[in-house]
Amino acid sequence: MSVRELLAALDVSAAGADLHALMARAQPLPRSLTGNGVRATLRLLAERIPLELHEVPTGSQVLDWTVPREWNVREAWVRGPDGERVVDLAEHPLHLLGYSVPMHATMGRAELDEHLHSLPERPALIPYRTSYYAESWGFCLPHARRLELAKGEYEVLVDATLEEGALTWGEAFLPGASEQEVLVSTHVCHPFMANDNLSGIAVVATLAERLATLDRSQRRYGWRFLFVPGTIGAIAWLARNEGAVSRIAHGLVAANLGDPGGFHYKRSRRGGAPIDRLVEVALRDLAEPLEVEDFVPFGYDERQYCSPGFDLPVGSLTRTPWGRYPEYHTSADDLSFVQPEALGGSLRAYLAVAAAIEGNRRYLNLSPKGEPQLGRRGLYRSLGGDEAGRERELALLWVLNQSDGDKDLLDVAERSGVALERLEEAAAALVEASLLRAVPGPDR
Amino acid sequence: MSVRELLAALDVSAAGADLHALMARAQPLPRSLTGNGVRATLRLLAERIPLELHEVPTGSQVLDWTVPREWNVREAWVRGPDGERVVDLAEHPLHLLGYSVPMHATMGRAELDEHLHSLPERPALIPYRTSYYAESWGFCLPHARRLELAKGEYEVLVDATLEEGALTWGEAFLPGASEQEVLVSTHVCHPFMANDNLSGIAVVATLAERLATLDRSQRRYGWRFLFVPGTIGAIAWLARNEGAVSRIAHGLVAANLGDPGGFHYKRSRRGGAPIDRLVEVALRDLAEPLEVEDFVPFGYDERQYCSPGFDLPVGSLTRTPWGRYPEYHTSADDLSFVQPEALGGSLRAYLAVAAAIEGNRRYLNLSPKGEPQLGRRGLYRSLGGDEAGRERELALLWVLNQSDGDKDLLDVAERSGVALERLEEAAAALVEASLLRAVPGPDR
Amino acid sequence: MSVRELLAALDVSAAGADLHALMARAQPLPRSLTGNGVRATLRLLAERIPLELHEVPTGSQVLDWTVPREWNVREAWVRGPDGERVVDLAEHPLHLLGYSVPMHATMGRAELDEHLHSLPERPALIPYRTSYYAESWGFCLPHARRLELAKGEYEVLVDATLEEGALTWGEAFLPGASEQEVLVSTHVCHPFMANDNLSGIAVVATLAERLATLDRSQRRYGWRFLFVPGTIGAIAWLARNEGAVSRIAHGLVAANLGDPGGFHYKRSRRGGAPIDRLVEVALRDLAEPLEVEDFVPFGYDERQYCSPGFDLPVGSLTRTPWGRYPEYHTSADDLSFVQPEALGGSLRAYLAVAAAIEGNRRYLNLSPKGEPQLGRRGLYRSLGGDEAGRERELALLWVLNQSDGDKDLLDVAERSGVALERLEEAAAALVEASLLRAVPGPDR
Repeated sequence: MSVRELLAALDVSAAGADLHALMARAQPLPRSLTGNGVRATLRLLAERIPLELHEVPTGSQVLDWTVPREWNVREAWVRGPDGERVVDLAEHPLHLLGYSVPMHATMGRAELDEHLHSLPERPALIPYRTSYYAESWGFCLPHARRLELAKGEYEVLVDATLEEGALTWGEAFLPGASEQEVLVSTHVCHPFMANDNLSGIAVVATLAERLATLDRSQRRYGWRFLFVPGTIGAIAWLARNEGAVSRIAHGLVAANLGDPGGFHYKRSRRGGAPIDRLVEVALRDLAEPLEVEDFVPFGYDERQYCSPGFDLPVGSLTRTPWGRYPEYHTSADDLSFVQPEALGGSLRAYLAVAAAIEGNRRYLNLSPKGEPQLGRRGLYRSLGGDEAGRERELALLWVLNQSDGDKDLLDVAERSGVALERLEEAAAALVEASLLRAVPGPDR
Repeated sequence: MSVRELLAALDVSAAGADLHALMARAQPLPRSLTGNGVRATLRLLAERIPLELHEVPTGSQVLDWTVPREWNVREAWVRGPDGERVVDLAEHPLHLLGYSVPMHATMGRAELDEHLHSLPERPALIPYRTSYYAESWGFCLPHARRLELAKGEYEVLVDATLEEGALTWGEAFLPGASEQEVLVSTHVCHPFMANDNLSGIAVVATLAERLATLDRSQRRYGWRFLFVPGTIGAIAWLARNEGAVSRIAHGLVAANLGDPGGFHYKRSRRGGAPIDRLVEVALRDLAEPLEVEDFVPFGYDERQYCSPGFDLPVGSLTRTPWGRYPEYHTSADDLSFVQPEALGGSLRAYLAVAAAIEGNRRYLNLSPKGEPQLGRRGLYRSLGGDEAGRERELALLWVLNQSDGDKDLLDVAERSGVALERLEEAAAALVEASLLRAVPGPDR
Repeated sequence: MSVRELLAALDVSAAGADLHALMARAQPLPRSLTGNGVRATLRLLAERIPLELHEVPTGSQVLDWTVPREWNVREAWVRGPDGERVVDLAEHPLHLLGYSVPMHATMGRAELDEHLHSLPERPALIPYRTSYYAESWGFCLPHARRLELAKGEYEVLVDATLEEGALTWGEAFLPGASEQEVLVSTHVCHPFMANDNLSGIAVVATLAERLATLDRSQRRYGWRFLFVPGTIGAIAWLARNEGAVSRIAHGLVAANLGDPGGFHYKRSRRGGAPIDRLVEVALRDLAEPLEVEDFVPFGYDERQYCSPGFDLPVGSLTRTPWGRYPEYHTSADDLSFVQPEALGGSLRAYLAVAAAIEGNRRYLNLSPKGEPQLGRRGLYRSLGGDEAGRERELALLWVLNQSDGDKDLLDVAERSGVALERLEEAAAALVEASLLRAVPGPDR
């Protein structure tokens, strides 16, 4: 069994339904940068994959940063002059500004207003806001409701704790035949929102689940899956694993994988890293349209993995990127916004990239002078004809012609336009015929 | 006298008529992978050029291949139920499947049909088919005639020999001033067909004939012309010349040079070899439209010359490439399909490439600081004006500015857009004025 | 104070008026390749900038050239059959062929005509013609007037001296903090004409004047301004400064800076030199459209600076290039053809390039692992919002992400699209916060 076969066996519709169901289970858990919502989310994933939870205590120094206090909330609301709750966290997880400090006070309409966040241009939606590193409190609400708030006294309660605790992340590792690793990372700090980031969580967990069905010898790489709070989580992981990052040969940051948009790939800082080229070829072979963009130092956690002191070969494969769909970071990014078919297609794309990573090897043509006589080895059509036979022959000729021990199948796939899967099959047949051998050694 | 002057002296119409006449003489000779038809074709060419015939015995190991038995045919036909011959090799050289094994038998219509080849979508044409390496026999015929074959008993005769013999190729070598060589190769294994391959045979032989009119000192390169059976011939030549291929600085595979299409160039496997760039500039200077395509590991014998163990700088300059014209590998590729004007134009293109190869040198500006004062050396117009004079000046300035001992005239021609011929003239004038000297040493 | 601040403080309209006024003062001075007109022009500039005049005696060998005799003219005219002067240098400085040899003779209409130059297709204009290196005399006049010249005897006077003297150039040097230099060169040999070359003279002198207001420590580079007669002047300067040219890190040849056309940049021979990229980014940041062209070995004195024995990183920034506007080298290139606004804009463009050159540095991120926490250093918006704040943040992130000690701000500006000025500000803020340090050492 191989990743390529997992891909071939994938039922996109069934997988999409499963992914959506997993997201629905995780949606109510109160995620934030730290706290019990993150832990609960990770425990849910641990039902499916061998996930370890890591905790770094508040106050720990991680690279240039300090782990903040842990935040947990019991309740939070604003009661109006008439005694009715006009905003209540119990009604919607986005109502409370993330990391709001505990408080209980009464104040006038004007003072309250300084702590309200809404979207005048989209008055029915609740925006998503946080204040992780500047002490503050606040409520987010539809602009329409904000306009209705009458003059008078308001009672405000944020019954939260902001205490010594820990930053938590989840990590699953599937060892492979070699020491080299593939990193797949997604953030787990957003409450409620489906595309950003439940879709990333679900697709990465399911990818891990599928790859875990293989034996270790069937994976050439170790596969490392990270479920981290954004920025500080990736920084904490990097701080705790500085010596190990050199094992990372390829990496992807996952997010926004359920919206109906086409795929988008943001290259690693290196630009021409194998992962950057593998993603393009893998999606080409799927006939999936792909928009490709060079690295910029803002976005998700590729910012950290691609900081110049690490400069890891990590790109980001998403559907519509952050900030480019109107539902982004609002209450409209809910379970109805993400489509099971899109989710299933995203898992398929990630499996295709995984298959490309695993199947890409360098080979050496053992009969490099002239073409070897394929006919007498049964590798050639004897009398012209069928198109599939012709494709197989072209793949054989391309692999033989290019396999000088330096170029890998990815190079051949790019140059020839032949699908990686066809080239992998050709290479296997040629190895079988003793015309080719795989070149050992790490990726470059 | 120089190749450039041969080019200037070429009468394209007269050359075209001569090429067509040579093809007409060669057409009836029964070419195949081996046998007397190949030998007869080579002897015809030897009337014009100093051609040596080489023979490699049946059973010889050449690289990964084994030289097959030699095939010669006396007669071959199918006699129908009414005693009439319904297919007869005497009527058309394409009627017999190439390398059909000897046989004489009687069989029913159905059994016969398994050995017939025709083109249902082009029912009037006879297809060209061979079975060199799988033992078989068969007949090729218009599909319309095949449909008329009545039920009943058929007598089939293939009076051929498939015996110990040899593989034959022809080779002409014109030595030059240096040890470096230019290889021009064409295949000689196709019976009857005019564009593929009589046109290649005629143009290459005539190119050799023209270059042979020069003294050895007038050729910077040795020129080696190969007339080889496809695939196995090139492989046999490579096997017998393994130690010598490092002398090949540039190479071209010729074919399909008489059809009315524009020129097409398939780059060497290296892609940016000097020959790849010289062909483009030479045809640009002729104002001949040229379609350029990167190397692919299928086609003619460039497959062998560009196999990774040799990786020679050999491209292929043709008119319409194989398989892209409807007459390809059918009886419609006859003498009426190829045009004398196209043949003459092809010879002109090959001569232009030869002139570019021979004229391309590196020079060193001996007065590299500032521009030398061209005026006092009579190399500059004193008072502006004529356009030809301006072109000459630009050529002088370009050659002086770029000739740092590293760049060659090809580099200058590409960068400046100035014709190679103008640059050659400028270089000659500057050498004469002691402002420039040619850099010795091999091409890179 | 910095060049960037000089640029910000520039009043384009006032500068344009000043530039035009300077050109008006210089216009009547009888410039040529040598002689008192050149000296008078340089003395006029010396009123503003610390200009030194250099003289190389007639007959001196400079590289491949010999300094010609010095040419000065008192009067020159042609008197017609009726005793009236039909052409008179006193009427227009372009009437006399530059470097006409002294003569006084009487001749018929036909003989005279061989010495007349006019533009049949533009009959109202006087063309500009010279004959520096071939002994000759002649007069230039409107074609319409030429056609009116009656048959009969003409008296011709060229009261000129062509004697042992000198070639004169002007040079101003503003030392900087480092040994590296920026060269700005313009030619001073054209009489009368405003765009070619009074505009170059005025813009370069004014650029020097502005940069001279800085302290030496405020200039990272030494700035060297050359006012040289075309070709021979640049050659003489190169001959006298051969050992010093390695200090030139960047260079520009200025001309045609007052016409109403957009900017045009001709790259150095190297093509990818820092100056080539700095000009493109500086004009991009000004939102000035810029046409860019690769080096060709004809044009102005970049021909000499970019000759292969020097190959200096010198490009040419102009408005409409020589020969591409109909007024070029005619009496129509007068003070009304050049626009004060265009002149002011040209000074602005040169100052912007100077600011880019001076501000471009390599930096090293001192906290390269992960992003440093900008928020706690007050470098980050706490709660999203304003666009200028966002731009500042992007500049910070780009500088941090790319500053690996190898890439410079120019690299970052090209890759990010962020203005160099924003990047310089970001770098300064990050240096202030001890997150970044400038890498010492020369440009590469």
